[in-house]
Amino acid sequence: MPGQRADARRNYARILDVAEAEVAAHGAEASLEQIARTAGVGSATVRRHFPSRRALLEAVFRERIETLCALAAELAGTGDPRTALVDWLGAVTEYAASARGLATALTLDGAAGPDAAHVQACSAKLTDAGGPLLRRAARDGAVTPDVTVADLLTLIAGIALATEHHADPAAEADRLLGLTVAGVSPQR
Amino acid sequence: MPGQRADARRNYARILDVAEAEVAAHGAEASLEQIARTAGVGSATVRRHFPSRRALLEAVFRERIETLCALAAELAGTGDPRTALVDWLGAVTEYAASARGLATALTLDGAAGPDAAHVQACSAKLTDAGGPLLRRAARDGAVTPDVTVADLLTLIAGIALATEHHADPAAEADRLLGLTVAGVSPQR
Repeated sequence: MPGQRADARRNYARILDVAEAEVAAHGAEASLEQIARTAGVGSATVRRHFPSRRALLEAVFRERIETLCALAAELAGTGDPRTALVDWLGAVTEYAASARGLATALTLDGAAGPDAAHVQACSAKLTDAGGPLLRRAARDGAVTPDVTVADLLTLIAGIALATEHHADPAAEADRLLGLTVAGVSPQR
Repeated sequence: MPGQRADARRNYARILDVAEAEVAAHGAEASLEQIARTAGVGSATVRRHFPSRRALLEAVFRERIETLCALAAELAGTGDPRTALVDWLGAVTEYAASARGLATALTLDGAAGPDAAHVQACSAKLTDAGGPLLRRAARDGAVTPDVTVADLLTLIAGIALATEHHADPAAEADRLLGLTVAGVSPQR
């Protein structure tokens, strides 16, 4: 019945929202029982939508990547080209910094997390999504020649990795992204 | 006898040179026997200078750090302040990119490698060594305000980590350092 399907969709969306917060806080060790309790559904409902912990983690990861892709599309059509690009890089960095603990947890327990092919597919999506933003900023003369989206994502990944053990990884990553965007020592 | 001591010093220096090349090529798995053969000394001589693999790896690491500190002191007194700083950052990046395999090997086999305190002491030495170079460039208006040597070393560590699996890590790390120095999108 249509009513039941709408209920299921609402449950799925609610579980995924709660799961995202739990995974951000506890990494791959997030408790499925706690997710069910917070979402106000039974454990059986969680299991029906996400048959395994791995399925849940992949869904959370895919959801975040899709949010970042949607943000790129939204920003590509509005405002100053440089600001739009820099805002998007900031959002990607914020996610990369918050997801590092998760990534480490997944590496330590490969069976429980998204596999390499899944991660690679998401990374390719993100690269594609950044293309229009970068090209628009480049046409505006706002980026250093020959920079690619892959370069930007590699720099962000490095910043996330190098700030992983900082007291406040997200703030430190954001600060270092700012330096990378502005240049440590831009040509005068 | 003085002649014997001079011999011992020459042997030590030769073994360390050879060890550096072997460790760069094979990481922590470098063969002590191969090092002895290439250095033209007996295994007993290698063991007399470096009683354990860990002692050898620590000596190689310390030697590279000291070379980078000496380079900083040399560059701080000569040439254009910005060029001097950028040249030094390039040398640190080249080392970080080539040492990554070693660092991973050491992480996987903590007992065989320099311990955290040793690595931290070397990192502090490097931070101190970069100070005069950075301050001189800052006085010259050549660096973004509030950048610290620690920021620069963190950015370099991130670049080395993020390019570890690249086909040519040293070349890619050098290219990304160039982007970080110039800025991905410097303010116009």
